[in-house]
Amino acid sequence: MKCRVCRGPAIIDIRRHNANFCSEHFLKLCRDQTAKAIAQFDMLQPGDRVLVAVSGGKDSLAVWDILNELGYDAEGFYVGLGIGECSDVSAEYATRFAHARNLTLHTEDLLRDHGFDVPHGSRAAKRAPCSACGLTKRHLFDEAAHRGGYDAIVTGHNLDDEAAVLMGNVLHWHTDYLARHAPMLPARDGFPKKAKPLVRLTERETAAYCVLRGIDYLVDECPMAVGNKHLAYKEQLNELERTSPGAKFDFYFRFLLDAQDRFAEAEAERTDISLQACERCGAPTNNDICSFCALTERATRPVPLTIGRKPQEVAS
Amino acid sequence: MKCRVCRGPAIIDIRRHNANFCSEHFLKLCRDQTAKAIAQFDMLQPGDRVLVAVSGGKDSLAVWDILNELGYDAEGFYVGLGIGECSDVSAEYATRFAHARNLTLHTEDLLRDHGFDVPHGSRAAKRAPCSACGLTKRHLFDEAAHRGGYDAIVTGHNLDDEAAVLMGNVLHWHTDYLARHAPMLPARDGFPKKAKPLVRLTERETAAYCVLRGIDYLVDECPMAVGNKHLAYKEQLNELERTSPGAKFDFYFRFLLDAQDRFAEAEAERTDISLQACERCGAPTNNDICSFCALTERATRPVPLTIGRKPQEVAS
Repeated sequence: MKCRVCRGPAIIDIRRHNANFCSEHFLKLCRDQTAKAIAQFDMLQPGDRVLVAVSGGKDSLAVWDILNELGYDAEGFYVGLGIGECSDVSAEYATRFAHARNLTLHTEDLLRDHGFDVPHGSRAAKRAPCSACGLTKRHLFDEAAHRGGYDAIVTGHNLDDEAAVLMGNVLHWHTDYLARHAPMLPARDGFPKKAKPLVRLTERETAAYCVLRGIDYLVDECPMAVGNKHLAYKEQLNELERTSPGAKFDFYFRFLLDAQDRFAEAEAERTDISLQACERCGAPTNNDICSFCALTERATRPVPLTIGRKPQEVAS
Repeated sequence: MKCRVCRGPAIIDIRRHNANFCSEHFLKLCRDQTAKAIAQFDMLQPGDRVLVAVSGGKDSLAVWDILNELGYDAEGFYVGLGIGECSDVSAEYATRFAHARNLTLHTEDLLRDHGFDVPHGSRAAKRAPCSACGLTKRHLFDEAAHRGGYDAIVTGHNLDDEAAVLMGNVLHWHTDYLARHAPMLPARDGFPKKAKPLVRLTERETAAYCVLRGIDYLVDECPMAVGNKHLAYKEQLNELERTSPGAKFDFYFRFLLDAQDRFAEAEAERTDISLQACERCGAPTNNDICSFCALTERATRPVPLTIGRKPQEVAS
């Protein structure tokens, strides 16, 4: 197995490129594919100040590392979500990565700074954990980017993530969501620009990138996501990929290039809604208070004491 | 396990309906779902003369049986495709079914009537077997319906078939094919109306229908289709269905109702092409000769003798 570029011993095969690569040229491939995605979707301009949403997993650390390699001014932002040991460990990975490279990592802690964590907050607000978590992260990332005057938020979403979300939306024909699959969302109405520069790389590739770059990362999936449909769609796409290398890339990119336009009017209607400032936090919202402030309110509401009932009755 | 309708002992559970059925009410469900599909997509009118494309498999025999039960004047049409023992056996099942019910079955044989069979013809014409076979069947069904003055051709395509084809077209974003997923195609330009009344029933249900009605059918998949993508997509959809009953139905029907319109302009362009009569057989075509006559010409062309070469050279 020889490297396609230098004919030296290869360490990884990438079937959808029908090629093998040595360590040096695989790392170059990852950087090149990231730069290609940035150019293809007009994600970032030279000199942009970038805030990377860092979870401590392979994707966010890989994208942060690659952006720095590509010469971008990229700082990290980590939110402690209070998901047990998982959150503690992920914070360590993020911090260790930043220290070792002398990079700036901003942190926020949901419980310390907002009075609730994802497991309790989602239960109190009667929202699915992944929904409460996603909404929280989006809000805090937006707010941090706005506060710090960053030009863009970058997330580590890879091809597997994006193709799986697309599969979920296609299986249910969520035509409104299908309009919003762009790997880059321009800034609008007080929301910062958002970019996903790893959309041309798979999970396997971002993991290999981290290993070869000596980046330690949190390997475990979030314990609250176990059994969710997203993981099933990923598995399904991997099964297709095994017999048809490139199927996952084609599914996602052909959608973006040939099909997404057909769902655009739903997006135009959505972005046509005029937004106002949240009465609590000032974030742009189409309600009086934004979803995050509404979640915070429900998640931090004092629990009424249950008086005059035996424990069995409460539990039943 | 009790029948949802009569509370008697149930013999089948249908998870997407969240219900169990006894034999009598399951058979009624199959007829009702077929009648519902016919009404929903305006497939047939009372009194229509219908030609059922019969393969000897469960779906085509089930739809023929149900149409007769529903009071339609439905005759059968069987084409011998020359796919080895599979074709011989399927002809027997079709003939036995028709005789036992005193129904009219018309037959045609590709080798006898057109000088080639699917395995040899597809090889000679350098077409994939499933492609040559599909084109042959479409042509012969159309021709038979035209000749006999039938109002519609009915095929036994079930929900699994249609959802799998949709999945294939979605994975590749074949936007032109996505415009043509209707379970009913109206007559146009010399082509007869085509209808798929079983689209609201799954493969498992048409198989159970046949078993309960005492209909013997060819169980084996076509040996030439083994390993094709269509079967992989079916398996993939079944996997989704296991964890989310109804997922397959939703995927197909939500597409028809909410998404297909978005791909319509491709279909409008296609149907805008004016057709002419094939110079050989008179069938409507956008070329001088139709695809079937072109296939026949290549499939029946005398094979030139290879002179002056040793066998090894020919084989290499």
